Amino acid sequence: MRGRVYLDWNATSPLRAEARVAMIAAMDLAGNPSSVHAEGRAARALVEKARAQVAAAVGCKPAEVVFTSGATEAAAVLRGFQHVVVDPTAHDCLWSQAREGQGPAVLGWGYANNETGVIAEAPAHDGPVMLDIVQAVGKVPFSFAWSGADMAILSAHKFGGPKGVGALIVRDGFEVPALLTGGGQEMGRRAGTENIIGIAGMGAAAEAAQRDLEGGVWDRVAEFRNILDSALSSAGNNTISVGKGGPRLPNTLNLIAPGWKGETQVMAMDLAGFAISAGSACSSGKVRASRVLKAMGFDEGLAAQAIRISLGPLTEKEEVERFAEAWLAHYRKALARAA
Amino acid sequence: MRGRVYLDWNATSPLRAEARVAMIAAMDLAGNPSSVHAEGRAARALVEKARAQVAAAVGCKPAEVVFTSGATEAAAVLRGFQHVVVDPTAHDCLWSQAREGQGPAVLGWGYANNETGVIAEAPAHDGPVMLDIVQAVGKVPFSFAWSGADMAILSAHKFGGPKGVGALIVRDGFEVPALLTGGGQEMGRRAGTENIIGIAGMGAAAEAAQRDLEGGVWDRVAEFRNILDSALSSAGNNTISVGKGGPRLPNTLNLIAPGWKGETQVMAMDLAGFAISAGSACSSGKVRASRVLKAMGFDEGLAAQAIRISLGPLTEKEEVERFAEAWLAHYRKALARAA
Repeated sequence: MRGRVYLDWNATSPLRAEARVAMIAAMDLAGNPSSVHAEGRAARALVEKARAQVAAAVGCKPAEVVFTSGATEAAAVLRGFQHVVVDPTAHDCLWSQAREGQGPAVLGWGYANNETGVIAEAPAHDGPVMLDIVQAVGKVPFSFAWSGADMAILSAHKFGGPKGVGALIVRDGFEVPALLTGGGQEMGRRAGTENIIGIAGMGAAAEAAQRDLEGGVWDRVAEFRNILDSALSSAGNNTISVGKGGPRLPNTLNLIAPGWKGETQVMAMDLAGFAISAGSACSSGKVRASRVLKAMGFDEGLAAQAIRISLGPLTEKEEVERFAEAWLAHYRKALARAA
Repeated sequence: MRGRVYLDWNATSPLRAEARVAMIAAMDLAGNPSSVHAEGRAARALVEKARAQVAAAVGCKPAEVVFTSGATEAAAVLRGFQHVVVDPTAHDCLWSQAREGQGPAVLGWGYANNETGVIAEAPAHDGPVMLDIVQAVGKVPFSFAWSGADMAILSAHKFGGPKGVGALIVRDGFEVPALLTGGGQEMGRRAGTENIIGIAGMGAAAEAAQRDLEGGVWDRVAEFRNILDSALSSAGNNTISVGKGGPRLPNTLNLIAPGWKGETQVMAMDLAGFAISAGSACSSGKVRASRVLKAMGFDEGLAAQAIRISLGPLTEKEEVERFAEAWLAHYRKALARAA
């Protein structure tokens, strides 16, 4: 992998050094957090420390944090609700929960889109609201308390924590049916022995991400993203930088390159040493036009010619420049072949 | 924790060195297994390696392994079935899934009991069978293929893997509805980005556990358990070694000590430097008589006076002897106080 350039941070981010240290330390704890003996209590303390770290990063109370195996599991609590409406650009984990039914609808809303980086506040809604803050946490300021939402879902591996751990945030007093049952963990809201190594990593990553955010790290990332945006748009041929001009994550560039299929771009750039994507990772096995872009009004053809380039705090200016150069050369060739 | 003796392996086991190494190596993989680029493919390869390791350890095909966040999540696929009957000594994660309904009943069966260590083959059943093999994996020979079961659930942290990762085994051709939806992971059977660090640890632990089992490590553990059994039973006062004489896990001793409450025993021994439990860890916050022992026919009083002592491959003879000495001294004092 030497010399490769990773520009797919929205798919997953490298593990932060702080998370790594916390996880390796947690490996030495033998106890089950549910056990009452000293070993159990030590494991419990570690989980509660991480809970406070996550709460601080998303602006909620520690007791509002329910650790899960990720955002997909957190979203699955919507199964317990009869009627769920979902914004058309939402991630598949929310999208798959949409259903018609009796009662006030729960609104599932993507706060920051994983494909385009577009940030959108939830509209006024007469019923409970679940916010998908997976891509927002650590990249832009967000406070669950101020959001007015009843629930939020997040995933550690998008902000430098490990994959396979996340959280459901549930507003104090709001009742959610447990998806997993059979044990009293997480105040009865999520049964199953806690992923203590992963949770320790999530807590440490949340704290580090919050510090980075407050330190202005993403301003530099946004600068590099904008350099990239300008460079790729210089290719002419009516490229479209999706969501440009509006509120957008600092690290995300979604670019439609007419005449060059997104999947082909991903493969060509992979061979050239760059990791990017054509849509969300979860569905990247499926070669099809982006549902998100179609929902935004792009036609099938344009939606199939988009790529997502997503940067992170470790991305270097030189990497962005190398990518732009390589991409432009490949695009010219692709257009020449098509001509 | 220096000098403490951990005898609660059925609650959770220390992380195996092999799992630790595999997990730390996995921390360097930046990719999302669903991504098509080189980083994604490297992460995918790691997941598939672990899948083969787990399959070898439980005697199934790799494609029959669905990684989950643990046995509780794996058991929760029973939500997708209308009618579920459960053996009365089963773990709460199965027990909580029992429901009356239309159609042929799914039988949820505990193959090796976590509290008593009692091993019981599932009875003939006219309908699908799910085996809870959480406590059996790595401790006794087991083959999913030979078991005839349709599903099985297991958890990495019971055989030296990390907490928060497990698997649902689904017989080739048997259909289960996905509990988590919204992504194509695990052949569409379980959405959500894979816990690759945890899965790497589970695979390595499964391989090491299988090697230990074949190497006869548990014969020594059984010997120590039997020493402990004889020593504690020497206290007189009609102690009962639950399940003695029948098929039992090599590491588990469930002992009823009339005149001394289980919870009090756990606390006294914890202060004396020993970690044991009074029932399953998941419910150990709740001070109540064991449902499992009551289902076996013990009355409320006896069921409330039981402790579970569970050993592992790292348990030393000297630790067992120290425990027996301390426990006997405390028991004598407790009986003297009660007299």
